[in-house]
Amino acid sequence: MPAGVDTEASKVDVLIVGAGPAGLMCALALARAGVKVRIVDKRPQKVAAGQADGIQPRTTEVFKSYGLSDRLVKEGTQLHVAAFYNPSKNGGIELTDRVPDVAATDTNFPFEVTLHQGAIEAIFLDDMRDMGIEVSRPVIPTSIEVNTALVEDFGAYPCRLVLEYANSDQEEKRSEIVYAKYVVGADGAHSWVRKQIDIVMEGEQTDYVWGVVDLVPDTDLPDVRNKCAIHSNNGSCMIIPREGDKIRLYIQLDGKDVIDANGRVDKNKAGPEKILDVARKTLHPFTIKTPQSYDWWTIYIIGQRVAQRYSLYSRVFIAGDACHTHSPKAGQGMNASMQDSYNLAWKLVHVLKGTARRTLLQTYELERRQYALDLIAFDKKFAKLFSGKPYSELNLDGVSHAEFLQAFQTFGGFTSGLGVHYDQSIIINPKYQHLARNALVGQRLPPRPLLRAADCRPIDLHDLLVSDTRFKLLIFTGNTHNPSQMARVVDFASKLRAPGSFFAEFSSLEAMHSVFDIVSISSEKKETIMYNALPRILWSHWSKVLIDDIDMRGITGSGKVYQSLGIDTAGAIIVVRPDGYVAAIAPLDGVSHLTNYFAGFMKRYP
Amino acid sequence: MPAGVDTEASKVDVLIVGAGPAGLMCALALARAGVKVRIVDKRPQKVAAGQADGIQPRTTEVFKSYGLSDRLVKEGTQLHVAAFYNPSKNGGIELTDRVPDVAATDTNFPFEVTLHQGAIEAIFLDDMRDMGIEVSRPVIPTSIEVNTALVEDFGAYPCRLVLEYANSDQEEKRSEIVYAKYVVGADGAHSWVRKQIDIVMEGEQTDYVWGVVDLVPDTDLPDVRNKCAIHSNNGSCMIIPREGDKIRLYIQLDGKDVIDANGRVDKNKAGPEKILDVARKTLHPFTIKTPQSYDWWTIYIIGQRVAQRYSLYSRVFIAGDACHTHSPKAGQGMNASMQDSYNLAWKLVHVLKGTARRTLLQTYELERRQYALDLIAFDKKFAKLFSGKPYSELNLDGVSHAEFLQAFQTFGGFTSGLGVHYDQSIIINPKYQHLARNALVGQRLPPRPLLRAADCRPIDLHDLLVSDTRFKLLIFTGNTHNPSQMARVVDFASKLRAPGSFFAEFSSLEAMHSVFDIVSISSEKKETIMYNALPRILWSHWSKVLIDDIDMRGITGSGKVYQSLGIDTAGAIIVVRPDGYVAAIAPLDGVSHLTNYFAGFMKRYP
Repeated sequence: MPAGVDTEASKVDVLIVGAGPAGLMCALALARAGVKVRIVDKRPQKVAAGQADGIQPRTTEVFKSYGLSDRLVKEGTQLHVAAFYNPSKNGGIELTDRVPDVAATDTNFPFEVTLHQGAIEAIFLDDMRDMGIEVSRPVIPTSIEVNTALVEDFGAYPCRLVLEYANSDQEEKRSEIVYAKYVVGADGAHSWVRKQIDIVMEGEQTDYVWGVVDLVPDTDLPDVRNKCAIHSNNGSCMIIPREGDKIRLYIQLDGKDVIDANGRVDKNKAGPEKILDVARKTLHPFTIKTPQSYDWWTIYIIGQRVAQRYSLYSRVFIAGDACHTHSPKAGQGMNASMQDSYNLAWKLVHVLKGTARRTLLQTYELERRQYALDLIAFDKKFAKLFSGKPYSELNLDGVSHAEFLQAFQTFGGFTSGLGVHYDQSIIINPKYQHLARNALVGQRLPPRPLLRAADCRPIDLHDLLVSDTRFKLLIFTGNTHNPSQMARVVDFASKLRAPGSFFAEFSSLEAMHSVFDIVSISSEKKETIMYNALPRILWSHWSKVLIDDIDMRGITGSGKVYQSLGIDTAGAIIVVRPDGYVAAIAPLDGVSHLTNYFAGFMKRYP
Repeated sequence: MPAGVDTEASKVDVLIVGAGPAGLMCALALARAGVKVRIVDKRPQKVAAGQADGIQPRTTEVFKSYGLSDRLVKEGTQLHVAAFYNPSKNGGIELTDRVPDVAATDTNFPFEVTLHQGAIEAIFLDDMRDMGIEVSRPVIPTSIEVNTALVEDFGAYPCRLVLEYANSDQEEKRSEIVYAKYVVGADGAHSWVRKQIDIVMEGEQTDYVWGVVDLVPDTDLPDVRNKCAIHSNNGSCMIIPREGDKIRLYIQLDGKDVIDANGRVDKNKAGPEKILDVARKTLHPFTIKTPQSYDWWTIYIIGQRVAQRYSLYSRVFIAGDACHTHSPKAGQGMNASMQDSYNLAWKLVHVLKGTARRTLLQTYELERRQYALDLIAFDKKFAKLFSGKPYSELNLDGVSHAEFLQAFQTFGGFTSGLGVHYDQSIIINPKYQHLARNALVGQRLPPRPLLRAADCRPIDLHDLLVSDTRFKLLIFTGNTHNPSQMARVVDFASKLRAPGSFFAEFSSLEAMHSVFDIVSISSEKKETIMYNALPRILWSHWSKVLIDDIDMRGITGSGKVYQSLGIDTAGAIIVVRPDGYVAAIAPLDGVSHLTNYFAGFMKRYP
């Protein structure tokens, strides 16, 4: 490459291609951590309506960890009920059942949130704007090269991209060369990045064709504000309530009506009126009037595919729809995409800051590709059940309500995102699982009500698990009112500070709490606890000491954390990853175990 | 007055003098209702630090009714615990007790919030700015005249004020004449408006002298993040935690050290160091270091006075400190002030809009002056207890902890603002109290968890009691699954719509829901309720039908509203005033009773 170009080229830690939910989550997470990031998108504007819109509980929890869940929950619609309609003996459909929309219970957000993708993207964009980051658009990358000689060099910029400004007026500024340490391709199902690095999608296209239409309904269906799964003898339909008075209808279509000779959807063959007409047959005897206008609509064939690999040299990554495509009915797409880049981002931060080795990055594909495979497997089962004919006296082989409901509830942990489990790896160490039986290593730590010792303010464990890229060391100190237990805690504190401990090695005295965040959770009672009686390292601030006791009113359900997580009076240490997953557990005298654990992927503090 | 001046004079519905908490609450409430309002203040800027800072639960509820409680609670510090320290046998003080800071329990905000007055004012100012209202400052009113011939004329502007722009550069614009329909003097303890309309303060000055200092403490007192009431043999002291790591110390001082020959505080005689020195003697054996700087400090003598009247011709009103002064220790001042103008504002709105007669305005003094008298009576008892010597073996006549604690808890309903009771009047009609035994007529309706029928979303009764100046008609329909009960509900709906009913007389068909907001609360179960099966007038929107049933998770405590309010299966109607107070109750066949009630102060819809 000509020297002149190099001199003018810009450098960036991470270049993100694609500003959909996966790309924006990645940019937000990196920017919050102080990483120099750029994000480009080929679309001139962010999406204004339609697209993905279902936010699952685990995703809302992640929004909370960035302080963004209030806005999400306020702007969105909450789905608490899944209503099931099935063929009635009088013809048409009738209400069969109303059940919780989210089967999983152990979350502070036991509901789906629906909000159109543009509004969700706006939450990210507004937050990023406060940090001085904007999406560059419309920008089209035209080449990407990775200098293989540099891929293992800390500090190197091995990725070279050429970006074209699609509608720039100034002729000489139409393209730009950018050198990046890392590239994230979050550029959708037809990912350009994925094609450039020769990653193949594995899987197949299905026969399922669906029409989707967003509208404000005028209907007498009494469950129009609940999620509805409707099975009629005239077809299946799903209703998703949306922000304001809007709903989304998912209607199964007959392929022959809308597929062209090449097997692709021909949108000229059917529009929203056609989709609504099919819906009317399914909804009978309930009616729905033709609206003045439609907010958004589309028709698609479901593909079920997963990328063979997720990265090139752990320097170029793909995330989101670039990695996996599947049906939208279980509301997973946008969630899976954001969780991909949420998983990747903190790992990139630690490697970029020099606190972790590059091997950490391999766990991204390990964890997220397995998740995508599980998602496709689930999707296949669920799509089959949903698209099947309903059971009736005329169709004894059909799908019964009981069968469908059971599947709906069995898959609940998975669809909510709460049951996602990452396997044992360099960052997942289940050795001392028995010391905290119900804080499952490899799963996200559940929320729990607690009290702050200094002021008895009710606080949730999740309030502490903020996404600040620090590992959270939850020190369950046991009952520190007991002198012998306090002696153990004092001993733990001195071992934690001693030279050679992970805390001394992988952080620094000046920045003791920049890599690790220490939170003490005592089982001492609120009447006697003196937060400042603990060793000083266990209360970097008065707000960092919690107690497992009933709040002043007995209304929050606090006082059961030790019991519900299966921690006994001897205490335990739970290491929580920056993304909220339980990484390792140790006894109070197990600092050396934790030193071994962190030595597996961390580097001496730079 | 010269005609020329009149022509150039501006007109305004309500002119508010003083932009402290009382004035700002008044301006916000009026502006939200679309009233043309102006607010002026003689201070060049809003307060930056110090001043009043304690927000009681009822005040937080009022903030919630304007959608402003989230910010208040987020920016402020929550006080959950009151800690009591008393003389220890070893000399110095020791922890005696930790009890709930707010004794009253039936609120969603069972804690005090502390936040400096400037930050509280900013919440109002930011909200008002969005409506195009700014405080004019520094502006000093120099004369006020009321044209007595016009005081009973709807549409007249009987109040004439001259305003001076204190530091205007343009000589000819230095003063302005404003004609107002109503004037509210919220201009503090030394109120200029009060003096102009010859209202006398009744009551007396006490001997209690207090020093107040705000600082970030470096101390080993373990309860420094709790409210502390400290009684030592060396004096009394109160600690109030503040936003961030700040605290406020209230220290009782010896009058002779700080009072001059005229009986006034001489701030030259003592500064924050002196106050802190006195505190140190009280806090021993705990220590507190001298901070680098003090955030704010003051010294004052407590006065206990109430204004003889609250208005002139019901055209000029006073509110807040202009009406009452008392000690700050129970954290009432700012709360009483904001509650004054919150009480006044909705009444002004209905009179200005022509939906209520002017007699409604007389209930302002009736309700709020009685409250102020009760407040002073409470303050006298509490101040005496707090300032008394602690009980000890050497001082058997001293105030014991048990005695102090009992007073603290007995007064809890009052100090929280939740127990405030307005007496029977044209707007408080207790006739059918027995139909909803625990919805006390004259008190604010407590919050209760409910479900929305259409989507089973948990919602609180208080979420519906927004401060939009509408009377809320809570229609407890009973179990509408029962056909005979549904028949009663249908009959009620038809009587409600019939000519001559209060709903037909005092609203209009075009603006049916602009004066009254109808909310239905059924005791039917979530599995069977069809919100659209109710008469159409009972669901102006799908969100207006609620049910008293357990939520999908059984976590919110919903499903007990009928029982806890004492409403039986026959149902009842609860009329809630625009400020959240229970105004009247009626049986479902009691539309005529409600018509009589509203006819007592309302006017035919204009």
